[in-house]
Amino acid sequence: MRIALLGGTGDIGQGLALRFARDTDHEVLIGSRDPEKAREAVDDYEAELEARGVDANIKGFKNGMAADRSDIVVLSVPPYHVGDTIESVEDSLDAETILVTPAVGMKGDEDGLHYHPPGTGSVTELVAERAPDEVPVVGAFHNLAADALSNLDTDLDLDTLLVADDDDAKETLRNLTNEIEGLRALDVGPLANAAEVESVTPLVINIAKYNTDLHDVGVKFQ
Amino acid sequence: MRIALLGGTGDIGQGLALRFARDTDHEVLIGSRDPEKAREAVDDYEAELEARGVDANIKGFKNGMAADRSDIVVLSVPPYHVGDTIESVEDSLDAETILVTPAVGMKGDEDGLHYHPPGTGSVTELVAERAPDEVPVVGAFHNLAADALSNLDTDLDLDTLLVADDDDAKETLRNLTNEIEGLRALDVGPLANAAEVESVTPLVINIAKYNTDLHDVGVKFQ
Repeated sequence: MRIALLGGTGDIGQGLALRFARDTDHEVLIGSRDPEKAREAVDDYEAELEARGVDANIKGFKNGMAADRSDIVVLSVPPYHVGDTIESVEDSLDAETILVTPAVGMKGDEDGLHYHPPGTGSVTELVAERAPDEVPVVGAFHNLAADALSNLDTDLDLDTLLVADDDDAKETLRNLTNEIEGLRALDVGPLANAAEVESVTPLVINIAKYNTDLHDVGVKFQ
Repeated sequence: MRIALLGGTGDIGQGLALRFARDTDHEVLIGSRDPEKAREAVDDYEAELEARGVDANIKGFKNGMAADRSDIVVLSVPPYHVGDTIESVEDSLDAETILVTPAVGMKGDEDGLHYHPPGTGSVTELVAERAPDEVPVVGAFHNLAADALSNLDTDLDLDTLLVADDDDAKETLRNLTNEIEGLRALDVGPLANAAEVESVTPLVINIAKYNTDLHDVGVKFQ
């Protein structure tokens, strides 16, 4: 399969690009609003992978072109860019493209970060609302610490939580996620269950803030 | 120390009673609105512990008497009974008593359970609002599966998340929690961070619903 990481020059995009490229045979496309920035990121990721003996297969494109060429499109952009990123690529999405959203709305104060969902109830449901009707949407990768994901020296032993209304799309994402070493995909049901999944992201950041021995923390259900 | 489990005849109370009695030297008091019901539960718990060679030190009382005798008072009651339980024992609470709340507001539909906090933002903050001002409140034990906790054959390897505005009370609870075998207490900061902690409870229940190989699931941050 081809996986497009829109906003793939950002931190969660970087981590997913490196892990997909190292652990799977799928082709990774980095998307950006600026294709030059995408290609620069690709150079960095390939250098990182080559240093570890991995012959990487990554390419950089403008977001729309990356989406157009891909079976799976990951919206690895900040939550406030989700709407305009979907708008900019919607002609490249169809019933055969799975749209994946890891974004979470949060706001911070002196105590820590707090879950701050949009009016739809969750960013995941906002994506489903904004995407063309026929495009299957899967919420995934919300609770992974970007730094741990991006550091290939870190052995993961973490869960990632999937929500989707389309069972086939969810199953595809489950298999894809399980190909990343040390990641386990768990099913959390339909998109309506996304808020509790997204809430874990401010929680893990608060845990890292208040426990000096826990950085870049993720979660495992057992 | 003396630990009162108000509503200690219920499922989370049972689990905490058995684990505290087996793994620590603290004295466990079971509280109930009906002292006869408390004493019946004590008989059950003691039988369960004696079958495992544990000489248990548990007593049963009416809620107010259990609270009056204890250093730590755990409100192991459903969220809709939190307010009236505090009211019924408030004369027994003072600055030397730590009030602990594991309750979470949830509502369910066909998709699963959803976090449903009261207007204060979380049940933990509701408890702090209803308790006498001088009583330190700690949110703890929200995300433990009652069945796993109550089954002493289950070896735990789980985290429990603490929120409190009173650092001394939080430290006392941290030490107490860490005495239970296989439980690790993590600090999540002040009471204002309780909502994201409580949200994990419907999430773990949804995970158990949608993943056939995961029952009575808890959480570990790593």
